[in-house]
Amino acid sequence: MSELRGAMIFGQSGGPTSVINASASGVFQTALKQDCITKVYGAAHGIKGILNENFYDMSKEDPYELELLKTTPSSALGSVRYKLANADVDDSDYKRLLEVFEKYNIRYFFYNGGNDSMDTCNKISKYMQKVGYECRVMGVPKTIDNDLFGTDHCPGYGSAAKYIATSTMEVYHDARVYDTGMITVLEVMGRNAGWLTASTALASVKGQGPDLIYLPELDFSLEQFLSDVERVYKKNGKVIVAVSEGAKYANGQYVADSGVRDSFGHAQLGGVATTLANIAKEKLGSKVRGIEFSLLQRCAAHCGSLNDVNESFLAGQTAVLKAVEGLTDYCIGFERAPGTEYKCTTKLIKLDDVANTERKIPREWINKEGNFVTKEFIEYALPLIQGDSHPPVEDGLPRFAKLAKISGAK
Amino acid sequence: MSELRGAMIFGQSGGPTSVINASASGVFQTALKQDCITKVYGAAHGIKGILNENFYDMSKEDPYELELLKTTPSSALGSVRYKLANADVDDSDYKRLLEVFEKYNIRYFFYNGGNDSMDTCNKISKYMQKVGYECRVMGVPKTIDNDLFGTDHCPGYGSAAKYIATSTMEVYHDARVYDTGMITVLEVMGRNAGWLTASTALASVKGQGPDLIYLPELDFSLEQFLSDVERVYKKNGKVIVAVSEGAKYANGQYVADSGVRDSFGHAQLGGVATTLANIAKEKLGSKVRGIEFSLLQRCAAHCGSLNDVNESFLAGQTAVLKAVEGLTDYCIGFERAPGTEYKCTTKLIKLDDVANTERKIPREWINKEGNFVTKEFIEYALPLIQGDSHPPVEDGLPRFAKLAKISGAK
Repeated sequence: MSELRGAMIFGQSGGPTSVINASASGVFQTALKQDCITKVYGAAHGIKGILNENFYDMSKEDPYELELLKTTPSSALGSVRYKLANADVDDSDYKRLLEVFEKYNIRYFFYNGGNDSMDTCNKISKYMQKVGYECRVMGVPKTIDNDLFGTDHCPGYGSAAKYIATSTMEVYHDARVYDTGMITVLEVMGRNAGWLTASTALASVKGQGPDLIYLPELDFSLEQFLSDVERVYKKNGKVIVAVSEGAKYANGQYVADSGVRDSFGHAQLGGVATTLANIAKEKLGSKVRGIEFSLLQRCAAHCGSLNDVNESFLAGQTAVLKAVEGLTDYCIGFERAPGTEYKCTTKLIKLDDVANTERKIPREWINKEGNFVTKEFIEYALPLIQGDSHPPVEDGLPRFAKLAKISGAK
Repeated sequence: MSELRGAMIFGQSGGPTSVINASASGVFQTALKQDCITKVYGAAHGIKGILNENFYDMSKEDPYELELLKTTPSSALGSVRYKLANADVDDSDYKRLLEVFEKYNIRYFFYNGGNDSMDTCNKISKYMQKVGYECRVMGVPKTIDNDLFGTDHCPGYGSAAKYIATSTMEVYHDARVYDTGMITVLEVMGRNAGWLTASTALASVKGQGPDLIYLPELDFSLEQFLSDVERVYKKNGKVIVAVSEGAKYANGQYVADSGVRDSFGHAQLGGVATTLANIAKEKLGSKVRGIEFSLLQRCAAHCGSLNDVNESFLAGQTAVLKAVEGLTDYCIGFERAPGTEYKCTTKLIKLDDVANTERKIPREWINKEGNFVTKEFIEYALPLIQGDSHPPVEDGLPRFAKLAKISGAK
C-alpha cells in the first residue's frame, strides 16, 4: 500500500484505567519515530478535544515523561464520555471533525477506549470512508471491565484484577482477626460483565479468597444470597462475599440502583456492598462490613500487572505500526496461544465487530450454583496479573508523568 | 539484675495494621534466641487466648514463616477487643491470668496494641506486681491512628499513611479525567486523632494531593465545609476533600454517627464521605464521589513503608531484649533525633503514662483556617513513609506467612 503522509491524533475515551497511559506511551513513542507521520497530536478529552481544536504537540514532551506514562494511572490527556450521533441523523460533529482533520492534515486517528469509544471510533472511520477522506483509523482497546468482543482480554483488566485480588487477600486477613463472626461484602466494578468481580477468586489460589461470588451474568437472588451466606457463616463464622456493582434481580432491577443515569443512559450504581451487608446483618445478627473498591480499583498503578502494562504499550505500538503499513478500520486485540504456557500476540478486529458488543463470562466458567467461578476462569485470568509494575518512587511516593501539554493548535 | 528464667507469651490486641505482625516477628525471632526464655508462646486472640489457655508454641513454626510475618498484614495470631475490669472491682480475670502464668511459668509478657491494649498491659503489670508474681511486662506499640502518648510516632502509622498518600495521588489523577466538575470526598480512619487523614497531604508534596483536609481535632462546620468546597470548585472545577471518619460538629455529634457503639463505648463510624458528598452535590449541583479507604488502609501490606516495617520489627525485638535485661512495666517508643536527617531510636515509656492517653495533632500543625495541615506536619510525616516494603510475590500475588499454629497448651 502507498505511504500516507500526514499528522496523527490520539485520544483517550471512557473511564480511565491504570494502564490507559501505557497505550498512549506506545502510540506516541512509536508515532514519533515514523517518517510518514509529520505531527503527533494528543487530543485533550478525546473527541471533544478534536472538535474544539484543543490538542497537544507531543513532540514537545520530554521523552522521559512519555516513558513514565507507562506507569501513570488515569488519562493523562483527559478523557470524555461523548456519544456521537448517527451521521445519517445529524452529521454536524462529523463535518466539524473532517474540517479539523483537513486543517491539520490529520491522516492517522487512534482512539483508546472501551465499547462506547469503539463505537465512536467506528462511526468516524465509516464517515471518513464515505466522504472519501483518506485517513487510517485504529482503535486501541482499554477497559478494566474486560468486556470487549473479539479479544482474549483487554488492556486494563490485568492490573485492576491484580489490585482486586491482592486487596481481597489483605481483607481476608483483616476480616478474620477476631474470634467473633464477621460477614464482609466486597463491591467490585463491572456493570454487565463480571470479569472484575470474578478476579477476587484469584485470591483463592492462595487460599485467601472470597467464599461466594455473585456476577451480573446471572440473576441475583436475595433468597439464595442469604441462604449461601448463612451456610458459610454457620460453618466458618467468617464470610467474604464478592458482588458486582451490576448485580440485578430477575426483574431487571439493579440491587443498588439509585435511579441516576449517565449520558449513555447507563444506571449509576453504588452501594450494593452496604445494602447486602445490612440485609445480612438483619438476618444473621452478625457483624458486617461493606467495602467498595471504588475508583481505587481502576487507578492503582502502584499495584499494576507488568504483563498488562507491557501489552497495553504493545497495543498502542501495534496500532501505529499497522496503520503506517496501510491498515485501517480495525481495533487491536489479543490472541492467546493454546497450551499451558501463556503466550499472547496481537490481532486485528474489525471495528464493526467490536463496537457496542459486550463479552460476558461464559456460563460454563461459573459454577452450577451460580455463586463462584470454575478453575477454567482461574486458568484464564491468572496469567494476566503476572509481573509487578510500579512507577519509580521519589520521596516514598510514586513519580507519575507530568506532561507539558504544549498546544498543537494553529 | 538477676536473670529471670521462664516462658514468655505475646499477644496481639486491638485493630490490626499491616505491620503488627512485623512486631510479632521481632518478638518471636528475638525471644527464640534467648537462653533464659524457656518457651515462646503466641496467644490466640490476645488476652482471651491466655485466659482460655489457647496459645501456640512458636518454636514449632518454620523460621521462614516467622520472617514472612514482617510483610504479612493483620494479626496472624488473632486479635481481640477485650477490656479488663479494674482489679479492685473484679479481679477474676486477673486471678485466672495468674493461674495460667504460674501453670506455664510465664515470666515474660508482651502485649502489642494501641491505647486500650496498653491499658490492659498496664493493669496486668500492676496486678502481677501487687501479688508479687515476678513477671516482666512490656508493651509493644501499634496503631495506624498514631495517637499513642510519649512516642514520636507509632508502628503501623507509616504504612497506612503511605498507602493513603499513594491512593490519594491515584485518585487525584482519576478524579480529573473529565472536563466536567467533580467533588471527591475521601474518608479516612482516625476517630479522635487526625494523623491518618492528614497523611493525604503527603500527596501534596507531589502536587497531587487534596484541596481541603478536615481533622477531628477541630469542630466540623458544615457551613465552612460548603463555603471552602464552593470556593475551590469555582476556581478549579475539581475538589478533593479528605475528612476523618471522626469529624464531629461543635455539639459533639459525629458527622457520620450511626448510633452503634463498640464494646469500649466508642461510636462505630462510617459513611461521612458519602454524607458530605451528597450534601455538596445538593448545594453545588456537581458530580460527586465519596470514597472510603475502609479496611484497605490498615491492611495494605503490598504498599508498606519499609521504614515502618523495620521499626515495627525493632519495637518487638527491643521489648524482648529490654525485658531480658531486667526492665518491666514499660512500652517501647521512638525518639527522633533533631535535625533534617531522619534518625530514630527506641525509648522506654512507662505503661502508666501511655495507657489511655491519646496524642492528637498539635493545633500549630493545622492551618489557621482549619482546613489543611502546615509544612511542619509534612516534615514530620514524610520520613515515616520512606522505603518500599512488599511481601514476596508468587503467582503474581503476595505470599503471606502461614503459621502452623501448634498448640502450646498443656
